[in-house]
Amino acid sequence: MVNLLEALNLPHIDEDLARVEGALRRAVTAEDPFLTEVAGHLVHAGGKRLRPALVLATALTAVPHVTDDVVQGGVSVELVHLGSLYHDDVMDEAEVRRGVQSVNARWGNLVAILAGDFLLARASEIAAGLGTEVAALLAATIGRLCEGQIGELQTAYNVERTEEAYLQAIAGKTAMLMSTACRVGALVAQLPRPEVEALTSLGRSFGMVFQIVDDILDIVETEEVLGKPSGHDMVEGVYTLPVIRALALATSGGDLRALLGRPLDAPEREKARAIVRASGGVEAAAGVARRFADEAVAHGRGVDGAETLGELGHRLIDSLPVEAS
Amino acid sequence: MVNLLEALNLPHIDEDLARVEGALRRAVTAEDPFLTEVAGHLVHAGGKRLRPALVLATALTAVPHVTDDVVQGGVSVELVHLGSLYHDDVMDEAEVRRGVQSVNARWGNLVAILAGDFLLARASEIAAGLGTEVAALLAATIGRLCEGQIGELQTAYNVERTEEAYLQAIAGKTAMLMSTACRVGALVAQLPRPEVEALTSLGRSFGMVFQIVDDILDIVETEEVLGKPSGHDMVEGVYTLPVIRALALATSGGDLRALLGRPLDAPEREKARAIVRASGGVEAAAGVARRFADEAVAHGRGVDGAETLGELGHRLIDSLPVEAS
Repeated sequence: MVNLLEALNLPHIDEDLARVEGALRRAVTAEDPFLTEVAGHLVHAGGKRLRPALVLATALTAVPHVTDDVVQGGVSVELVHLGSLYHDDVMDEAEVRRGVQSVNARWGNLVAILAGDFLLARASEIAAGLGTEVAALLAATIGRLCEGQIGELQTAYNVERTEEAYLQAIAGKTAMLMSTACRVGALVAQLPRPEVEALTSLGRSFGMVFQIVDDILDIVETEEVLGKPSGHDMVEGVYTLPVIRALALATSGGDLRALLGRPLDAPEREKARAIVRASGGVEAAAGVARRFADEAVAHGRGVDGAETLGELGHRLIDSLPVEAS
Repeated sequence: MVNLLEALNLPHIDEDLARVEGALRRAVTAEDPFLTEVAGHLVHAGGKRLRPALVLATALTAVPHVTDDVVQGGVSVELVHLGSLYHDDVMDEAEVRRGVQSVNARWGNLVAILAGDFLLARASEIAAGLGTEVAALLAATIGRLCEGQIGELQTAYNVERTEEAYLQAIAGKTAMLMSTACRVGALVAQLPRPEVEALTSLGRSFGMVFQIVDDILDIVETEEVLGKPSGHDMVEGVYTLPVIRALALATSGGDLRALLGRPLDAPEREKARAIVRASGGVEAAAGVARRFADEAVAHGRGVDGAETLGELGHRLIDSLPVEAS
């Protein structure tokens, strides 16, 4: 996998992200020491902080240095991401997240739900400090995340899941927050409206690439490379783009359809992954991702200094061990 | 129980709350029809809408008619309440809420968590439309709700739970949102700052009364009167003020302590309730509630037209079937 933070090619990214990190740790401090511990659990577990980096990168197309408001914008976006992970892990009954025990596994579902609510509330509170537009945007983003997740739940184990339903679900659960990260950076840096809109669209297109690539990796990479079980989506009944494409192909569709539609054990999962890999579905999915990456480039052309940011989707696709078809 | 909406003595309360109701239903409409159904489930189940009524009542101390912004303030506060109920019911594994099947019982925990997130996000989005101060306040309120709930979880089944820990937990889980309801009404109606602060404090004091009275009713009333199982708090290990007071008394403390500290079956629950009722703990708790009700009156004196609102806590206590000591 390409290092996206390096690919952004921002001169002071380490220092700027260190400021985000400090502000993030302060933001999750509650009056109650136990809530502080739980709310800080995933923050302390680390993470790439890609979304704050997008806030920084968009803001830096307009301003020479990262201001405190830009840092707070990055914090609010990352808190939405973290809060949603707390609730995701409850829903998935996940045991491990980012190499540490998940919050639900360690303290139970009740605490994980409340701590997730707390992080989302802190995100909204910080966003309110950046003005009503950012506050409304963050709240709408959380709403869209929920819609995307609900869409995914509704089509679980459904071998008739359409490409349209898939794209709509990932637009809500992933691309919206990437888009919001770029929009927050642009708004806080007070870019003119056309640039704000272009960067918002760029973020959305990049977010689509990001999720499709993630879904491809779940099929083609080993557990060692991913750092988490591969083929997990199929086991959970989440049929992603490579799977949807493989199901639609005459050569692979029948065998795959016979396997899917229910939870899989490990040998079934490996068989299903092998069918999808051999089908051409992965390459077709990469082709769809490339179209979104092309869109991102086009949006980036509308903003001075956003060329590198616009190329980010292509960098991701280039790092895949498969060719787009 | 006294009818608090009547006790507020607002001339057009029915018409004004009907406007809140319409706006509430529009607010929970999502793009996805399934999410719309789930998010609207508890809205359609009805409810007294006490918190929106507090928003209306505080605003009407300053303005002659309820504006659309006041209505939206009421909607945002009620959405916080509803969203927190969705998550509460997941945590309590509740089967029934407001006479209908709970969301978690009907659609599962995953859907209930997401729909609760969605309602909280809609609350924040609407609050953002009322300005950054209201937006920040709503977000901080959600954070305090979480802190109050976490505080309650931490002291579950702890017979050494202190009165201070109890008061702090109910300040977060109940009084903060009542206080916020009053503050939102005052802010949206653009009252001067001293009146905003007085009404905020009035709401907090009333909220404390409201929760203590609720906790007393759980001990003294029958399931038929409550419309839900009585003694439920003790069964769940939530030791409220009447219980804490009974535990502290030499005459009742020993027997009660021997029963508590673990889940109770129905006969044990009735035995524990009888001990608390006979102990004087209920009357002592009502006495604490009366002190908060007196505070509310004092805060109400600082604002023209807030006298009736200030008396609301006393009206609640007067309706109890016990005397305060």
